[in-house]
Amino acid sequence: MPQGQPSVVPDDGLTTRQRRNRPLVVVHTGIGKGKSTAAFGLALRAWNQGWPIGVFQFVKSAKWKVGEERALRVLGDSGEGGTVAWHKMGEGWSWVQRDLQGDNLSNEEKAREGWEQVKRDLAAETYQLYVLDEFAYPMHWGWVDTDEVISVLRDRPGTQHVVITGRNAPEKLVDFADLVTDMSKVKHPMDVGQKGQRGIEW
Amino acid sequence: MPQGQPSVVPDDGLTTRQRRNRPLVVVHTGIGKGKSTAAFGLALRAWNQGWPIGVFQFVKSAKWKVGEERALRVLGDSGEGGTVAWHKMGEGWSWVQRDLQGDNLSNEEKAREGWEQVKRDLAAETYQLYVLDEFAYPMHWGWVDTDEVISVLRDRPGTQHVVITGRNAPEKLVDFADLVTDMSKVKHPMDVGQKGQRGIEW
Repeated sequence: MPQGQPSVVPDDGLTTRQRRNRPLVVVHTGIGKGKSTAAFGLALRAWNQGWPIGVFQFVKSAKWKVGEERALRVLGDSGEGGTVAWHKMGEGWSWVQRDLQGDNLSNEEKAREGWEQVKRDLAAETYQLYVLDEFAYPMHWGWVDTDEVISVLRDRPGTQHVVITGRNAPEKLVDFADLVTDMSKVKHPMDVGQKGQRGIEW
Repeated sequence: MPQGQPSVVPDDGLTTRQRRNRPLVVVHTGIGKGKSTAAFGLALRAWNQGWPIGVFQFVKSAKWKVGEERALRVLGDSGEGGTVAWHKMGEGWSWVQRDLQGDNLSNEEKAREGWEQVKRDLAAETYQLYVLDEFAYPMHWGWVDTDEVISVLRDRPGTQHVVITGRNAPEKLVDFADLVTDMSKVKHPMDVGQKGQRGIEW
């Protein structure tokens, strides 16, 4: 429940308007459910504002999040809000030639290739909201250099918001981010033998 | 990252299929961001499955979550997935006559009226996913009886999933729910004087 009242008025020389439109880096981390789900929920607001949205799924399986993908694609194509571009590592990044990926690229190389494209898009100001889904993993595993990510994000031009999800977000990234939520697991049906189910888990 | 492997195989006499399709009560609580956002993200999956979705917003201001509302309405009207019915306490529940609400009903009475409708819809199996947004508050404040909520949810017919959001979800409800995520605040821009902004907060 946002109350609209900041608890501190900062001494940063910015007007309220400048401060209000500051581009944000948002991190959803922790072992609980809802990290990606909340990121895609945020995309609904961005869509409503007419923002171009770029989703980069840094996951191995192309089957994940098919529901969110279909919904965002239908919204993007509706002509009533922002556009949606959806990029999936799992079935091969669309901008990489087919014969250069698949068995020829390791997951580490694929993740790095995804990040290179995000850098190009940030430099070109292609989108206004970036959902870097599960991007905490390649950083956590050292496939993508966290210091470089922070420096690229710090120097990005314009008003581009970036949401990064995934367990084990590096502490440096958490320190740098503007808005961080830790989703903790209180209880999960798999603990008591429930398997994942359609419409809930995917 | 659901792995699909439950850590325990329960001795409940149910087949895997029965267990897989068990209707869930999901609670998103805690003081961090993302409780409602993740609930609306979940609605995208339900929509993709073609489920009828009922959203009940137990909030005072009708202005909240306009982005999610517009997105879900466009999806519901697209004819490509499930339907979406969106009910708002803030501008008066649609099923209550205009002249009976507004100044004539207290927020407590409005919240209770919302819950009465949820009960009717559960009994009639109107929806397959219920998003009871901010419904933890009326329970926390004692406006709606938590024991009654639990008993109604326990005895609901069919396969109806219910997601309840809000800070301070009553402990009894957390104990009863199948899936609970606590969203904790690690860092929020309002802490350093940032005001809420369009596309991010609403």
